[in-house]
Amino acid sequence: MGSLKELKEQVWQANMELFRKNLVVHTFGNVSGIDRKRNIIAIKPSGIPYPELSVDKIVMVDLENRVVDSKYKPSSDTRSHLVLYKAFPGIGGIVHTHSPYATAWAQARKPIPCLGTTHADHLPTEIPCTRELSDKQIKGDYETETANQIVKRFSGISPDEVQMVLVAGHGPFTWGKSPEQAVYHSLMLEEIAKIALFTLLINPGVKNLQRALIDKHFFRKHGKNSYYGQT
Amino acid sequence: MGSLKELKEQVWQANMELFRKNLVVHTFGNVSGIDRKRNIIAIKPSGIPYPELSVDKIVMVDLENRVVDSKYKPSSDTRSHLVLYKAFPGIGGIVHTHSPYATAWAQARKPIPCLGTTHADHLPTEIPCTRELSDKQIKGDYETETANQIVKRFSGISPDEVQMVLVAGHGPFTWGKSPEQAVYHSLMLEEIAKIALFTLLINPGVKNLQRALIDKHFFRKHGKNSYYGQT
Amino acid sequence: MGSLKELKEQVWQANMELFRKNLVVHTFGNVSGIDRKRNIIAIKPSGIPYPELSVDKIVMVDLENRVVDSKYKPSSDTRSHLVLYKAFPGIGGIVHTHSPYATAWAQARKPIPCLGTTHADHLPTEIPCTRELSDKQIKGDYETETANQIVKRFSGISPDEVQMVLVAGHGPFTWGKSPEQAVYHSLMLEEIAKIALFTLLINPGVKNLQRALIDKHFFRKHGKNSYYGQT
Amino acid sequence: MGSLKELKEQVWQANMELFRKNLVVHTFGNVSGIDRKRNIIAIKPSGIPYPELSVDKIVMVDLENRVVDSKYKPSSDTRSHLVLYKAFPGIGGIVHTHSPYATAWAQARKPIPCLGTTHADHLPTEIPCTRELSDKQIKGDYETETANQIVKRFSGISPDEVQMVLVAGHGPFTWGKSPEQAVYHSLMLEEIAKIALFTLLINPGVKNLQRALIDKHFFRKHGKNSYYGQT
Repeated sequence: MGSLKELKEQVWQANMELFRKNLVVHTFGNVSGIDRKRNIIAIKPSGIPYPELSVDKIVMVDLENRVVDSKYKPSSDTRSHLVLYKAFPGIGGIVHTHSPYATAWAQARKPIPCLGTTHADHLPTEIPCTRELSDKQIKGDYETETANQIVKRFSGISPDEVQMVLVAGHGPFTWGKSPEQAVYHSLMLEEIAKIALFTLLINPGVKNLQRALIDKHFFRKHGKNSYYGQT
Repeated sequence: MGSLKELKEQVWQANMELFRKNLVVHTFGNVSGIDRKRNIIAIKPSGIPYPELSVDKIVMVDLENRVVDSKYKPSSDTRSHLVLYKAFPGIGGIVHTHSPYATAWAQARKPIPCLGTTHADHLPTEIPCTRELSDKQIKGDYETETANQIVKRFSGISPDEVQMVLVAGHGPFTWGKSPEQAVYHSLMLEEIAKIALFTLLINPGVKNLQRALIDKHFFRKHGKNSYYGQT
Repeated sequence: MGSLKELKEQVWQANMELFRKNLVVHTFGNVSGIDRKRNIIAIKPSGIPYPELSVDKIVMVDLENRVVDSKYKPSSDTRSHLVLYKAFPGIGGIVHTHSPYATAWAQARKPIPCLGTTHADHLPTEIPCTRELSDKQIKGDYETETANQIVKRFSGISPDEVQMVLVAGHGPFTWGKSPEQAVYHSLMLEEIAKIALFTLLINPGVKNLQRALIDKHFFRKHGKNSYYGQT
Repeated sequence: MGSLKELKEQVWQANMELFRKNLVVHTFGNVSGIDRKRNIIAIKPSGIPYPELSVDKIVMVDLENRVVDSKYKPSSDTRSHLVLYKAFPGIGGIVHTHSPYATAWAQARKPIPCLGTTHADHLPTEIPCTRELSDKQIKGDYETETANQIVKRFSGISPDEVQMVLVAGHGPFTWGKSPEQAVYHSLMLEEIAKIALFTLLINPGVKNLQRALIDKHFFRKHGKNSYYGQT
């Protein structure tokens, strides 16, 4: 873990990567990262278009959402990020987008079934979709409750294994060990969501991938027996 | 409010932005802006391809569609714009495109239901679709009647809150406080229209977003209690 | 009408425009142009990838498909072009592509119904689809018979008004007064085909645009009472 | 057949072309080539993102998957490639991608029917889809068994005529006389898969292309009576 300056740089780079990969339109979407030792989060400022984003505009807040050192307001979704960092101690970065295919599944309020190995390479289950928030949650501390709904949905699911979720009627959140990895998961989620829709259009009655094949693909890339990549 | 020269520059910039964002093909589509003090409208000339458009080719007309100072003919849709400026006194810019997803909803003659927060971030209702014009309207002053049909559809709807409409069998019009904001609404309408189609393909029986969530998203970005962005 | 050198230049430019607009993949697709006074056709050579195409590789043939002055073989579709030039004396350029949306309608063996004004701006009817060729036609002079099938479909249709056609199971042909205009029609056909598919997905029971609106849009852009553009 | 250095160069170029044509996301996908005289295969290293790939990172292995001279691990799919090179002696290059439309057909576990001439220009049959692997195959030597399943599916099919296959629940493999031609087949497969889906959406009951037309298109481009291209 480096300095806070390095964290801001990482978070800025990850936000720009989100923009370059066409996962966001206008100001929509945001990336954050956390320094677990100091309990400081760096996040995109609210409502700034990506082409105008520079590293010095990245906002740092503490776990109580107090701005540490910035004249900018943090993303309006910051409280959602804080809940997830507290509930999922293994994660180091979070991304929220409105990327079109993943958002369509969220709006359809359907989890994305595991239909192929592109999906199984990344997680060994469906991509979960939260339940709708109650009117009371919406009218209360909405951004906090949005993340509470995610945490509730992850009862019995490991957030270190499943690093993507659809918020019903809203859109996707992804996370990872670093801001960079969280962005990678957003990119992969959009790809998986797109291919899953095309698959259903070709064969509406398609069955899920068989369990043995899901496990094979997931575990050849993850865990102690993995054998993918150079290490 | 600046000079008429600044208005022309704004309208030219907004037309070029429409082109850069891939919302138009060839010469299709146009942006206008109004100087409310002088009652002068600046608009794209008719039938000029975007790569050939320069600021001096932007045409200025008065509210009776008389060209003020240009050798070019204004867009054939100018009379539609004039009707909207007269009927909706709060707006400063108007855009018309044939962007594919929004145009498909217009051709399907269906309003776009509010299925998610990407939509609710921008307006708190469905995106309305006009009724078809009568043969008499079509054979009369067609461009004026097209806008009259929009105004009729907005009976009971605030054009300052709902800034997008689909003209049945034709395509979308959007507006805003400035030409720039009107272009932003065209970009968002196309994104909303695309995600809505994908949502229906995944779940044809999907229900509208719940009222509390629509209001939450709309009013956190608009009105006196908004808290999105830097101001 | 300029020199044959100018015709080659025009045909080369039009082929490159087809490539730049993403209407072709690899070597698929071709543009030709005719010098009506000299009865000479210039056309893309067979099987040359677009990035390697230069003006000197454009092949000239006479109406009997004899190469005039080139070491290259003309497109394998040249005989189709020749039939169309002979049957439709008003046209100056022809394009054939496998652009995905238009090709899908051709493979579906369905004409594209007129569902909106984007379509009506270009032609006042559906976009026709030929009948399938008989086995005898296929095994005979196939490229000639392909165009014969188009000509047959145009019995009672003016090729100066309807400048697009789908060849069943194959793909689109478009034409125009010049090679450049024929390319423009290919671009518009692809856009119309795309929007028509999206429209059907939103509303499978959608009706055709009303006759008065089709005529209004077509004749404001075409014929002696047109009022679109700068002239 | 050139030197091994030339083979590495060819394989690197083909991998980069796959990336440039947007057929791969992140590290997914790989291209290999074989020197038939020396029985040496050159292939992409495992898990290296394309922007970081250079010619010296291409790995050479022998037919028993022993690395010849590299500090990098070859693609985790290398054993699949080896099986295909042994079973199909006429091929010189192999490509595996997760390109979205072809992968959707593989996930739908459906062969792509021959619906048009774009397809018939490349192969005279449907694009076959393998049967699912058994749990035993998956838990055994998975990558070898994946290719065994392809070889099984090609019983009675010539791999020199049909150069594309869908692996059920996974994605496409293509091959050709060279790595470059194998990449071309991946590009065409994606295009064919896309147009086939659009065709089904327009006309779900569409019939296959008639046999005479399939043969006409395939044999005007392939075999001793072909007449397409410059040779």
